[in-house]
Amino acid sequence: MSRIAVVGELLIDLISTNTVKDLGEATSFRRFFAGSPGNLASNLNDLGIESILLSRVGNDPFGRAYLEHLRLKGIDTSFVQQDQEAHTSMVFVSRSQSSPQFSAFRGADCLLEEPYDIDSFMKDIDFIHFTTWPLSCERSREVCCKLVDYALRTGVRITFDPNYRQILWTHNQDGSEFIIGFLENVFLVKPSEDDANEIFGPGEPLDYIRKFHESGAKNVILTLGQKGSMISDGNRVVTLPSCARRVVDTTGAGDAFWSGVLFGLLGGKDIFESAVYGNYCAGFRIEHEGKEVILPSIDALKAIFEAGDYL
Amino acid sequence: MSRIAVVGELLIDLISTNTVKDLGEATSFRRFFAGSPGNLASNLNDLGIESILLSRVGNDPFGRAYLEHLRLKGIDTSFVQQDQEAHTSMVFVSRSQSSPQFSAFRGADCLLEEPYDIDSFMKDIDFIHFTTWPLSCERSREVCCKLVDYALRTGVRITFDPNYRQILWTHNQDGSEFIIGFLENVFLVKPSEDDANEIFGPGEPLDYIRKFHESGAKNVILTLGQKGSMISDGNRVVTLPSCARRVVDTTGAGDAFWSGVLFGLLGGKDIFESAVYGNYCAGFRIEHEGKEVILPSIDALKAIFEAGDYL
Repeated sequence: MSRIAVVGELLIDLISTNTVKDLGEATSFRRFFAGSPGNLASNLNDLGIESILLSRVGNDPFGRAYLEHLRLKGIDTSFVQQDQEAHTSMVFVSRSQSSPQFSAFRGADCLLEEPYDIDSFMKDIDFIHFTTWPLSCERSREVCCKLVDYALRTGVRITFDPNYRQILWTHNQDGSEFIIGFLENVFLVKPSEDDANEIFGPGEPLDYIRKFHESGAKNVILTLGQKGSMISDGNRVVTLPSCARRVVDTTGAGDAFWSGVLFGLLGGKDIFESAVYGNYCAGFRIEHEGKEVILPSIDALKAIFEAGDYL
Repeated sequence: MSRIAVVGELLIDLISTNTVKDLGEATSFRRFFAGSPGNLASNLNDLGIESILLSRVGNDPFGRAYLEHLRLKGIDTSFVQQDQEAHTSMVFVSRSQSSPQFSAFRGADCLLEEPYDIDSFMKDIDFIHFTTWPLSCERSREVCCKLVDYALRTGVRITFDPNYRQILWTHNQDGSEFIIGFLENVFLVKPSEDDANEIFGPGEPLDYIRKFHESGAKNVILTLGQKGSMISDGNRVVTLPSCARRVVDTTGAGDAFWSGVLFGLLGGKDIFESAVYGNYCAGFRIEHEGKEVILPSIDALKAIFEAGDYL
């Protein structure tokens, strides 16, 4: 009955339907349930892993609809808080010929409070997973620090998605410094090259891996986009090519990767073998349009990708 | 060189493109530049009246695009503030078979500050116009009260759009009470029946008019939708039927009405004759799809509607 606690932002993404130079020019948007923790819980659910979300949305039509969406999937939302005043946090994203522009309108996610019953929230938890969003606001950061203390006291391992963007840290100007400190207690961190660059500045993949370890992370998976990923346990580094045979849609590939890794770790696999599962999950997402497509079981994914003999 | 000062919210409206039962079900939205003060400034500009806006948007793609939109029309935005942290306020609206549902995500509009140079802002001002939005938040309310004092000291007449909805006043629970007090110094108030009902509770049109006068408003225009409007100077009440010959789109009709009334008052007409101009402007908006259609001159509107002999 092991479970994964997932802490962080549930967001509404509003993505422009037309391609624009500037987000301000966009005149129509599509609405998506988003935020890495929501995607992760959903992927874990697809793989048959129970998770429990700690998050905060507004008591508004979007927050209520998101909760309903998660409940319909069978995800435990009993620790998702509803703020009576702040709105559900939103991210507007432009479709663009170059890099997409985004603008975060933060509300309830910043105001995350402690779980009303921390013992019950942490019951049967093997891993607790954090993103950087709750670390960027004062109140939610305090909650995360308390949960880290609880996890360290009770032997719960900490996984961390360092999806750091300086622009989200307007109030606390200590973003990368705080994140480096946070790494001290982390069992596994999975940065992309962009994340690593935002935290440590320009560098080479092996330098980044070394820096994450030096900051305290026990295991590091550095993702390199189409070039695959590099996995390190601090003793050896293994490079894993992406198993995706075609690129259809990379949205949500990172969260899918996490779900496969956590599936492996929960099953007692080491970080290298677990990363292979993560790679399958990400590969499946990349080969299919839209993150709403249900992830097949790990066995089915093995069959799909091993038959393809992608390595 | 007389001008009108317009104080209040510049909003981004996001209106669902599909008809839904609940706003949370809406999956796509169109973006519009909105907020009654922005619409009013735009209508006044169409009629050749100079206005100056006091408002606050976020320094985000939406706020910047809205300012650019106003500037392109030639509207003075030198007193529109840009908040560095809070986002441009937004309103999500559902298209619905019954009444549209809305959800306001307020940001910068609540944080309105005093004009950096109040004498320059109030220079050559004949009327200062308020909506209820800035009255609903503590900081912006203080700014309004200072401007009212300044107006009373300098003989600037106050017009007031009592577009009150209790749901916007979550922090200050004194909505209708405060509005009734605010009416004390008002030269002209133009409520709809819905506004009057929100402020005074259920009642008949003549009762509402009496209550607005008793609260201090010198002139009252009560709009009754398709039934037209009732105009009162405290001595007599005139009923004015709507001049719209067909109903295409009622969006923005109220703000158009205001612009015609203010055109008349600036030209020295009394409230009854000014209301006829307001009626023309509203009629034109109602007969045309979209508030982006430029309002013709009052002379042209006269020709359009008097030729139709609508009275």
